[in-house]
Amino acid sequence: MIQQTLESLRINEMRLVDRIARFASLGTTRVAFSEADRRGRELIVTMMKEVGVDTSVDSVSNIIGRREGRQKGPKILVGSHVDTVRNGGRFDGVLGCVAALEVVQTLEEANVETEYPLEIMIFANEEGQTFNGMTGSRAVAGILDPMELTETDENGQTLAQAIEVCGGDPTHLADVERKPSESVGYIELHIEQGGVLEQRGTAIGIVEGIVSLMHAKIIVTGTARHSGTTPMSLRRDALTAAAKFIIAVEEEIRSGKLCSVGTVGQLQIEPNSPNVIPGEVRLTLELRDLDDAKVRSSFEYFRQHVVEIASVSGVEIIVDEARQFASALADPFVVGSILRATGRLGLSHHIMPSGAGHDAQMIAKIAPMGMIFVPSVEGISHAENEFTSDGDCVNGANVLLHSILELDANRGRVHTG
Amino acid sequence: MIQQTLESLRINEMRLVDRIARFASLGTTRVAFSEADRRGRELIVTMMKEVGVDTSVDSVSNIIGRREGRQKGPKILVGSHVDTVRNGGRFDGVLGCVAALEVVQTLEEANVETEYPLEIMIFANEEGQTFNGMTGSRAVAGILDPMELTETDENGQTLAQAIEVCGGDPTHLADVERKPSESVGYIELHIEQGGVLEQRGTAIGIVEGIVSLMHAKIIVTGTARHSGTTPMSLRRDALTAAAKFIIAVEEEIRSGKLCSVGTVGQLQIEPNSPNVIPGEVRLTLELRDLDDAKVRSSFEYFRQHVVEIASVSGVEIIVDEARQFASALADPFVVGSILRATGRLGLSHHIMPSGAGHDAQMIAKIAPMGMIFVPSVEGISHAENEFTSDGDCVNGANVLLHSILELDANRGRVHTG
Repeated sequence: MIQQTLESLRINEMRLVDRIARFASLGTTRVAFSEADRRGRELIVTMMKEVGVDTSVDSVSNIIGRREGRQKGPKILVGSHVDTVRNGGRFDGVLGCVAALEVVQTLEEANVETEYPLEIMIFANEEGQTFNGMTGSRAVAGILDPMELTETDENGQTLAQAIEVCGGDPTHLADVERKPSESVGYIELHIEQGGVLEQRGTAIGIVEGIVSLMHAKIIVTGTARHSGTTPMSLRRDALTAAAKFIIAVEEEIRSGKLCSVGTVGQLQIEPNSPNVIPGEVRLTLELRDLDDAKVRSSFEYFRQHVVEIASVSGVEIIVDEARQFASALADPFVVGSILRATGRLGLSHHIMPSGAGHDAQMIAKIAPMGMIFVPSVEGISHAENEFTSDGDCVNGANVLLHSILELDANRGRVHTG
Repeated sequence: MIQQTLESLRINEMRLVDRIARFASLGTTRVAFSEADRRGRELIVTMMKEVGVDTSVDSVSNIIGRREGRQKGPKILVGSHVDTVRNGGRFDGVLGCVAALEVVQTLEEANVETEYPLEIMIFANEEGQTFNGMTGSRAVAGILDPMELTETDENGQTLAQAIEVCGGDPTHLADVERKPSESVGYIELHIEQGGVLEQRGTAIGIVEGIVSLMHAKIIVTGTARHSGTTPMSLRRDALTAAAKFIIAVEEEIRSGKLCSVGTVGQLQIEPNSPNVIPGEVRLTLELRDLDDAKVRSSFEYFRQHVVEIASVSGVEIIVDEARQFASALADPFVVGSILRATGRLGLSHHIMPSGAGHDAQMIAKIAPMGMIFVPSVEGISHAENEFTSDGDCVNGANVLLHSILELDANRGRVHTG
């Protein structure tokens, strides 16, 4: 196939949109390892057969579809996930999966042979609604702790049992891990899940990296007292102290001196009664930024600030637990491939961080990674009214197709030249 | 009995303390109309038999113990309640009940005949843990809405059925209502449930009135969004707006320009997840002051303030429901009786409002009312570590005895002279 023809290659729009609809007809609650999730897994396997790729399930229960290349050796990986959150949407995960199928089917129909084999990877349990998330991609990256296999869901089923039910073999998890030399790169198409692209009127987001995330639990302890009999001067109100902290997070992050976003999303108040001064508030603090060090220093800033609030409010505040997940930067060469694909298709683009976590974050440990975002209407995601227009889905899939062609055509030159 | 002997009359300390302990041995969760409450009711009836008073249960299931006076006609009422909150304490309600018994038994043993009959009133459902509280005292005051009889608890039992199980006759509720001419006065001994007396080192609190209470529900509506993908500038965070309101209540009330206390005690957050910006917060606002108008104007102040917060924060805030309960002032003549009793016993006193509601608040509508408080250690109440020392319980019961004697001796003079 001559270069001109390759450049004019486009995915089948109707088929892409139809496959998204076929997933939607299963409903949009497919919690990983549940019966609903297994129906989603069966559907993607059915679609892989339609496309004509070799399909297999690995030891951690990732579903893998393979199309050979001219060379043996390192592969180009492309994928996403078919599990959802409870009451999730139609596009999160599914778009990346059906677009990956569409890329392969388009190449198949146009008789385009790639230099490198292509592997469609449908990762097990991205969303982590029962067990910790990203089980499949963490296993591929070699960072799934075998201890997790004994964790149980609310029905007492272990993760090992759940993986087995989905066709995996948890006794051979190590087989799943890949070495960096095995992959040319990994590209994932995903809806943005935020409102930035829509607000800018931009078609394609090119991810520069997936942000670092710090999650901390903070416990404010005051004294629960009768709200009628306790004068203001004798109060140790855990909620008013917590409110000061919530305001501080909002104001300090907005000032722009700290990390890019910070959220207090969850509060548990004891006793949470209208006529009792709150005696205890447990709250979550979440900080994100592409720069790991900025997340760390912002956390330290708030840890100091808490001491001031405690002293002024006469309560005790402790930081109970803090976990940081490192950021994952996109590979410049993969980003370059996506940029060229976007340019070829005449689409506007915006280079941006991913504030949400994705399997790509894990796969970045063993392969050069890139992600393509398409707009989410009103930034809504993880909800039934999550929506991305047909046109934006098609744009995303075409960018995915040409990014892979770019990666396939140029990788050899860069690495060997 | 000569005057000198009457003045030296004291209640039986051991017996008072022992009766408190007998109630504690039943446990301290006696939710009104429950089996545990019925055991408490049986115990007070047993104790009434020990004292030797005529015992009856009225139509709303108040337990009434009667000792005759020299006159027929208006009675001196004394009482409290034996029901508790869930995981309540040993003294709230019980102290006032056993002290009332002790007053009657002391008079009986000393062969003191009073001018007016004495009625011990053990009011049904003061605490209102399932049905609205103060059922018994509201019926006596003629302000129990018969519609409430059809309300149900979590087991589907109606209030009417609950009253029947406890020996009442809900078809004859009107019989319970009393006219002002039927009572000389009502005095209730209760633990303070706050920390004022302990902090001052004062033995006896003399209640000048029971505060007015305003209860409002406020709903803050923002937009629930992914905490990682939504920049600070695109957020409509319901929790940060709610936090501003919580701080405003604390600061404005502490400034002293508004009502005496104000509390945000309860928050419900949606979805209350660490990685979702809160989309909705429902919170309770409670305001109290002895001056009804001050409560009302403070409420109006915060209702205005909410508009400002909504405008600055880009969220919607509505005040969903606001109910005000009027204050009840103590009767000056009853207060005078308590003051003289305190003086006679050589005890320090402090005249103070009651921030908590009591049956006395309802009975004030049909009888001159007064209340006696004794210190609560650390102001703790409605909790298992609620504590009042034996000495303070004894002081309170002796003040109750002599207040009743004062009321009995002097009422005729005031009202007829």
